[in-house]
Amino acid sequence: MIRTLVLTDEFEIKQNVPLEALPDLRAAWYWVDFNCPDEEEAVLLDRHFHFHPLAVEDCYHFLQRPKLDYYDDYHFFVVHALNQKTLESEEVDLFVGHNFIVTFHYAPLKEIDIVWERVLSNREIWHHGSSYVSYMIIDKLVDGYFPAVYQIEDQLNEIEDKEANRGSLMDEVFDIRSDLLKLRRTVVPMRDLLYRILNSDRLNIVKEQRAYYMDVHDHLLKLAEIIESNREITSDMRDNYLSLNSFRMNKIMITLTIISSVFIPLTFIAGVYGMNFDNMPELHWRYGYFMILGVMTLIGVLMVLWFKLKGWFDVFK
Amino acid sequence: MIRTLVLTDEFEIKQNVPLEALPDLRAAWYWVDFNCPDEEEAVLLDRHFHFHPLAVEDCYHFLQRPKLDYYDDYHFFVVHALNQKTLESEEVDLFVGHNFIVTFHYAPLKEIDIVWERVLSNREIWHHGSSYVSYMIIDKLVDGYFPAVYQIEDQLNEIEDKEANRGSLMDEVFDIRSDLLKLRRTVVPMRDLLYRILNSDRLNIVKEQRAYYMDVHDHLLKLAEIIESNREITSDMRDNYLSLNSFRMNKIMITLTIISSVFIPLTFIAGVYGMNFDNMPELHWRYGYFMILGVMTLIGVLMVLWFKLKGWFDVFK
Amino acid sequence: MIRTLVLTDEFEIKQNVPLEALPDLRAAWYWVDFNCPDEEEAVLLDRHFHFHPLAVEDCYHFLQRPKLDYYDDYHFFVVHALNQKTLESEEVDLFVGHNFIVTFHYAPLKEIDIVWERVLSNREIWHHGSSYVSYMIIDKLVDGYFPAVYQIEDQLNEIEDKEANRGSLMDEVFDIRSDLLKLRRTVVPMRDLLYRILNSDRLNIVKEQRAYYMDVHDHLLKLAEIIESNREITSDMRDNYLSLNSFRMNKIMITLTIISSVFIPLTFIAGVYGMNFDNMPELHWRYGYFMILGVMTLIGVLMVLWFKLKGWFDVFK
Amino acid sequence: MIRTLVLTDEFEIKQNVPLEALPDLRAAWYWVDFNCPDEEEAVLLDRHFHFHPLAVEDCYHFLQRPKLDYYDDYHFFVVHALNQKTLESEEVDLFVGHNFIVTFHYAPLKEIDIVWERVLSNREIWHHGSSYVSYMIIDKLVDGYFPAVYQIEDQLNEIEDKEANRGSLMDEVFDIRSDLLKLRRTVVPMRDLLYRILNSDRLNIVKEQRAYYMDVHDHLLKLAEIIESNREITSDMRDNYLSLNSFRMNKIMITLTIISSVFIPLTFIAGVYGMNFDNMPELHWRYGYFMILGVMTLIGVLMVLWFKLKGWFDVFK
Amino acid sequence: MIRTLVLTDEFEIKQNVPLEALPDLRAAWYWVDFNCPDEEEAVLLDRHFHFHPLAVEDCYHFLQRPKLDYYDDYHFFVVHALNQKTLESEEVDLFVGHNFIVTFHYAPLKEIDIVWERVLSNREIWHHGSSYVSYMIIDKLVDGYFPAVYQIEDQLNEIEDKEANRGSLMDEVFDIRSDLLKLRRTVVPMRDLLYRILNSDRLNIVKEQRAYYMDVHDHLLKLAEIIESNREITSDMRDNYLSLNSFRMNKIMITLTIISSVFIPLTFIAGVYGMNFDNMPELHWRYGYFMILGVMTLIGVLMVLWFKLKGWFDVFK
Ligand SMILES: [Mg+2]
Ligand SMILES: [Mg+2]
Ligand SMILES: [Mg+2]
Ligand SMILES: [Mg+2]
Ligand SMILES: [Mg+2]
Ligand SMILES: [Mg+2]
Ligand SMILES: [Mg+2]
Ligand SMILES: [Mg+2]
Ligand SMILES: [Mg+2]
Ligand SMILES: [Mg+2]
Ligand SMILES: [Mg+2]
Ligand SMILES: [Mg+2]
Ligand SMILES: [Mg+2]
Ligand SMILES: [Mg+2]
Ligand SMILES: [Mg+2]
Ligand SMILES: [Mg+2]
Ligand SMILES: [Mg+2]
Ligand SMILES: [Mg+2]
Ligand SMILES: [Mg+2]
Ligand SMILES: [Mg+2]
Ligand SMILES: [Mg+2]
Ligand SMILES: [Mg+2]
Ligand SMILES: [Mg+2]
Ligand SMILES: [Mg+2]
Ligand SMILES: [Mg+2]
Ligand SMILES: [Mg+2]
Ligand SMILES: [Mg+2]
Ligand SMILES: [Mg+2]
Ligand SMILES: [Mg+2]
Ligand SMILES: [Mg+2]
Ligand SMILES: [Mg+2]
Repeated sequence: MIRTLVLTDEFEIKQNVPLEALPDLRAAWYWVDFNCPDEEEAVLLDRHFHFHPLAVEDCYHFLQRPKLDYYDDYHFFVVHALNQKTLESEEVDLFVGHNFIVTFHYAPLKEIDIVWERVLSNREIWHHGSSYVSYMIIDKLVDGYFPAVYQIEDQLNEIEDKEANRGSLMDEVFDIRSDLLKLRRTVVPMRDLLYRILNSDRLNIVKEQRAYYMDVHDHLLKLAEIIESNREITSDMRDNYLSLNSFRMNKIMITLTIISSVFIPLTFIAGVYGMNFDNMPELHWRYGYFMILGVMTLIGVLMVLWFKLKGWFDVFK
Repeated sequence: MIRTLVLTDEFEIKQNVPLEALPDLRAAWYWVDFNCPDEEEAVLLDRHFHFHPLAVEDCYHFLQRPKLDYYDDYHFFVVHALNQKTLESEEVDLFVGHNFIVTFHYAPLKEIDIVWERVLSNREIWHHGSSYVSYMIIDKLVDGYFPAVYQIEDQLNEIEDKEANRGSLMDEVFDIRSDLLKLRRTVVPMRDLLYRILNSDRLNIVKEQRAYYMDVHDHLLKLAEIIESNREITSDMRDNYLSLNSFRMNKIMITLTIISSVFIPLTFIAGVYGMNFDNMPELHWRYGYFMILGVMTLIGVLMVLWFKLKGWFDVFK
Repeated sequence: MIRTLVLTDEFEIKQNVPLEALPDLRAAWYWVDFNCPDEEEAVLLDRHFHFHPLAVEDCYHFLQRPKLDYYDDYHFFVVHALNQKTLESEEVDLFVGHNFIVTFHYAPLKEIDIVWERVLSNREIWHHGSSYVSYMIIDKLVDGYFPAVYQIEDQLNEIEDKEANRGSLMDEVFDIRSDLLKLRRTVVPMRDLLYRILNSDRLNIVKEQRAYYMDVHDHLLKLAEIIESNREITSDMRDNYLSLNSFRMNKIMITLTIISSVFIPLTFIAGVYGMNFDNMPELHWRYGYFMILGVMTLIGVLMVLWFKLKGWFDVFK
Repeated sequence: MIRTLVLTDEFEIKQNVPLEALPDLRAAWYWVDFNCPDEEEAVLLDRHFHFHPLAVEDCYHFLQRPKLDYYDDYHFFVVHALNQKTLESEEVDLFVGHNFIVTFHYAPLKEIDIVWERVLSNREIWHHGSSYVSYMIIDKLVDGYFPAVYQIEDQLNEIEDKEANRGSLMDEVFDIRSDLLKLRRTVVPMRDLLYRILNSDRLNIVKEQRAYYMDVHDHLLKLAEIIESNREITSDMRDNYLSLNSFRMNKIMITLTIISSVFIPLTFIAGVYGMNFDNMPELHWRYGYFMILGVMTLIGVLMVLWFKLKGWFDVFK
Repeated sequence: MIRTLVLTDEFEIKQNVPLEALPDLRAAWYWVDFNCPDEEEAVLLDRHFHFHPLAVEDCYHFLQRPKLDYYDDYHFFVVHALNQKTLESEEVDLFVGHNFIVTFHYAPLKEIDIVWERVLSNREIWHHGSSYVSYMIIDKLVDGYFPAVYQIEDQLNEIEDKEANRGSLMDEVFDIRSDLLKLRRTVVPMRDLLYRILNSDRLNIVKEQRAYYMDVHDHLLKLAEIIESNREITSDMRDNYLSLNSFRMNKIMITLTIISSVFIPLTFIAGVYGMNFDNMPELHWRYGYFMILGVMTLIGVLMVLWFKLKGWFDVFK
């Protein structure tokens, strides 16, 4: 679907102006939104607007990095919205000329709709023109990153509160790490783009707007820091889990070893005197049974003492 | 609560001047402190002072990075105090004009109170004006980071002295790592802000004040280094703990294996001659019992020798 | 094999012009492709074209990094194609003068053939000359990196869907990591070369072509990011696998330890009363057998309770 | 203790000149050394020399980073000596004016004493003045870092020669890692200071002295490289130790598992025929005993073959 | 030994000119090689050539980083040859003036000898003078790094082909890692030196020679990349080995646990009915033996099913 929004010379907003009528209208500025365009509509980027083939190609293909290209009569931005469900980025392409803005995106985007409504309803914005609208879109898209990041922080806090030796713990941590990686793929290139916008010589951003773009840049810096910091927290969690497991394993094996080492030799001795040889003199001694019980007790006690001496019981403290 | 401190033309300090009276007073400079303001007071940032909406928005929201924004008649600083208990950062916002300073913070801050008292009591400071007061606040906030960092160093030293195979050791190390991460979140962005202040062209810091800001920057560099170095110490501790556990596990398993491997076959032999078959010729041999004892001893000795040859006893040295 | 492609003054394309005829032809520009040359052909770089000995040496040797060298009458590029099977890089050497391009490669390359065909069939390109052809080759080579990278992403996604405790899992992850390393060896130096091309003062790239080279650079940045990100995913997978194994080991050992620790002492007791001493009073007690069964049950229950108290059964939840 | 060294106008060296007499003396240059000053002496930095309060504060406090501050009439250096025993750094503060040098240190330092003696005995140095003395001190302090670094290298070499499965090995490696960390805390900030000295615009180092400072910088670069490289060696050692332990554990557990798995079922069978049921037909078979021995042998051989097939014996090769 | 090589005014090469005769000869340029000099010869650096004391000191001491120092009449290079056996670096010091080159090295170096011979036999070189000879030496030394690096790559490839569960595998990987670290110590500082040479303002390298030095720099970049990449491969190998071990351990322990857990309770039951109490009613039941065999089979089957249900057999797939 293609929708248009035109501010006329008489400072009136018109919607649904067909593309062909645009050149005839004496527009202060206009905004054309390619909202999930079908193929027939998409080719109008080239056929109607005659944008540069490289930029048009970038619109048609996915997997573009956020970027800013300078062309003679317009600037071309590729920016990313964040899909809250998949945490993948959705591409939005902006052509910003001095009196027009063209947006192009294959996914329906709440953020674009909100800006559209706000432009319609807020006369203040009408004065600012196309470049202010492009700021509003970028700002809105970046604001859309926060819920996902905060949700991950909440998940991490929840995990820290739960007991630490569940088997599913590491699955959750791994999922969070993988989400953080996905988020970073969106946030870091956007941060780099905003940095480039702020430091661009060829993009004449008036001083007032600079403050606005710096605000977005601040948000992206903060987001990138939170993501990196949470990655470190998850890697600490994993390491902590491993050392916890390692310590518990020690305790388990010491338990097994002490019990086995004490009883296995004793069981052997019992086995010896359970043999059915005809000629086993000890069996006929009067106190043979009690003597062997004594020997067994002695061996058991000595082994326990030896383990104690070796400090193996310390692990249970 | 809003409190005011005004230096009049006659070089006198007045307190509790209502905001509306400020413009009429011929003040050399004044300081307005929004100390845990309620909503009604907070809106005065906009309504009374007409600060830029982006700066005002930053005051109302948490989770701001330390930063410095330039506006026409004032500079806007966001700086962080460190909450000694939670180790989280508390935001302080500063508007610094040539003859005024406005501070805004939602948490009560000992550091601000101390600077307030010092300004009241020290006539020397009255000459320096608003920008010196802003230095005093930043310096005081950064001084407040040291106790938390030193406390962590003390905890680490304590841990190193205790015995290393307690199960709780890694919990403590993990807590310290997480505290260091929290501290880093406050210290590193503050360090970056101070660097920006020192290298700002648009912030005319007189030469004398430059030395003072460099002093704060030095402190933050030192803090960041200590934090990073302590992170490495904790990660070394964790690795050391893991290799210690791994070595102990080896010892435990060798013990279990030697004892089991020696006695399990012997017990089997004893079991064989404990069977109740009618026709078991060995049982009726005269020296059958003694022969089998000999065979058992031989097997046991050979196995121990084999383990010795394999070097398995070396681990106990 | 050496093939030639000449655009004559009369704007006609000629093929198969022998090298010796080139100087006599009044060519607008020409392209000589050393396509898997034999030794006799290879020496023509020096003998016919008199290129700089260092550049010629670079053509003859493998293991060259992508690079750009400036000589008086031409630029010398070393670029890399990616062998889709081995994931090793294949070297392509380009000499680009203002009216000629010489390509040199020991491996047959589909990418070069495609560009060759496109130049033959597309009159548009004839105007652009040798430097545009060099862009087309580099662009085509870089496009050839994508299938390999996407294939690895697919493999990773497949692995994530399969069950996680196969023994072969880590072999696959290790293979992918090693493929990523190979790809990075090709992609990163190419990215650095493109960066150098874009920022070269001495390489006069006209503004139009700059956009094209930036497009290639964008692709390489994207590729490098995907590779780095996938390396992190594989390292997360490996760490996750290790912690999963560690957790499972805990469960296994707890099972073994509980069963062993409960039954080994009981078996010992049974062994004691299986001994054949003449004088064992308990054997003749009326309810001796039942008492001992009771004692055994008691010991077993107590041990299970003790393990339960210690939380060892939590691991099975 | 405060000691003084004055070069008079007549090119004579005088010692033990009281501070008050210094201004009256027509000194070419003089050196005042605050050698482990008591509190009364320390305040003279402020009271006698009127140095800047920030610099004086830095002298009184420990935990300063090496640094260089510019003041109107002098430069202020903080540099570090290395305590050979604790490997902690000791602070030395230098005030260097065009005709004086003031050194301040709370620890007695062999390096300062050596420079003092060399200045006294070497007339050559008398011409060079205060800035050359400051170079001599810094150079001497840095020379003092080498023995500690070389000693660690020796320890590492020794460790590599010893047998690798001692339990104490990792303790030693851990100690070395911790020593390297301490050394790095001294060396890296000093290296950064020297870099700053070499690249300072405001510090007019004459060309000749530049070569000397570069020499010190080279030493610090080398030291930092050795430290970093040794950190990597220790971390390789630790990883190697862990994989060695892991491999040995495998061998141990395979031994235990093979022996247990073979004999535990056999012992069970022996146990069955050791039961005392009245009606156990097999017991009365003529060759029952020999048949069961045959069955046991068969089971044992089959299990060993199965383990062999599974490749479990490969680990002993 | 000191050897000399002089190009006279008449464009003739003379060898074995004594040092004292050098000033009298009207040499176009000359090369003096201190080839493993004894102490008496070494002092001639100072006594005959009067080189700067810092440079001379660097010649006498080992453990110097590759570097370039500018002196008034000459440049001073420290460069490194690689000892193919120890993989340690050997220092070569070069003094390069406009009409002379002095080389100084304590180890006999094949590379220097080769350059010496080539200078003698190749008239072409005679024109280029001392700075071209210095390039030839540096180029030759760097060429000498390749065999060691390639040999390590071969070793790695061999290791990858061998079976992966030998105990000696990690020893070999560890040795290779340590060799790579040694190589990096030589290659990286040399790379940094070449970078500095290429970007030096004060070293007037004529344009032609620049291409040659860039060629050496390219080689060093490539070497550094191979080394870093091989370090990552070895660390991947180690991690893979650990996860392989961890997986195998799981399999071993599951085997042990299943067999033990099934038979230990059964053996206990057999032990119970092997007791010799007078009053054990079950023993006299007609089908007591067969009932207990049935119970044992049931328990065994149930336990195996339970393990199957828990997925413990999956590990053998
Ligand atoms: Mg594109
Ligand atoms: Mg697109
Ligand atoms: Mg926003
Ligand atoms: Mg913000
Ligand atoms: Mg990361
Ligand atoms: Mg870290
Ligand atoms: Mg904001
Ligand atoms: Mg705020
Ligand atoms: Mg302070
Ligand atoms: Mg200070
Ligand atoms: Mg860190
Ligand atoms: Mg480290
Ligand atoms: Mg070459
Ligand atoms: Mg080549
Ligand atoms: Mg392309
Ligand atoms: Mg693209
Ligand atoms: Mg990587
Ligand atoms: Mg990471
Ligand atoms: Mg201070
Ligand atoms: Mg001090
Ligand atoms: Mg020195
Ligand atoms: Mg390190
Ligand atoms: Mg490193
Ligand atoms: Mg490394
Ligand atoms: Mg030196
Ligand atoms: Mg030397
Ligand atoms: Mg070479
Ligand atoms: Mg080359
Ligand atoms: Mg490395
Ligand atoms: Mg690195
Ligand atoms: Mg890596």
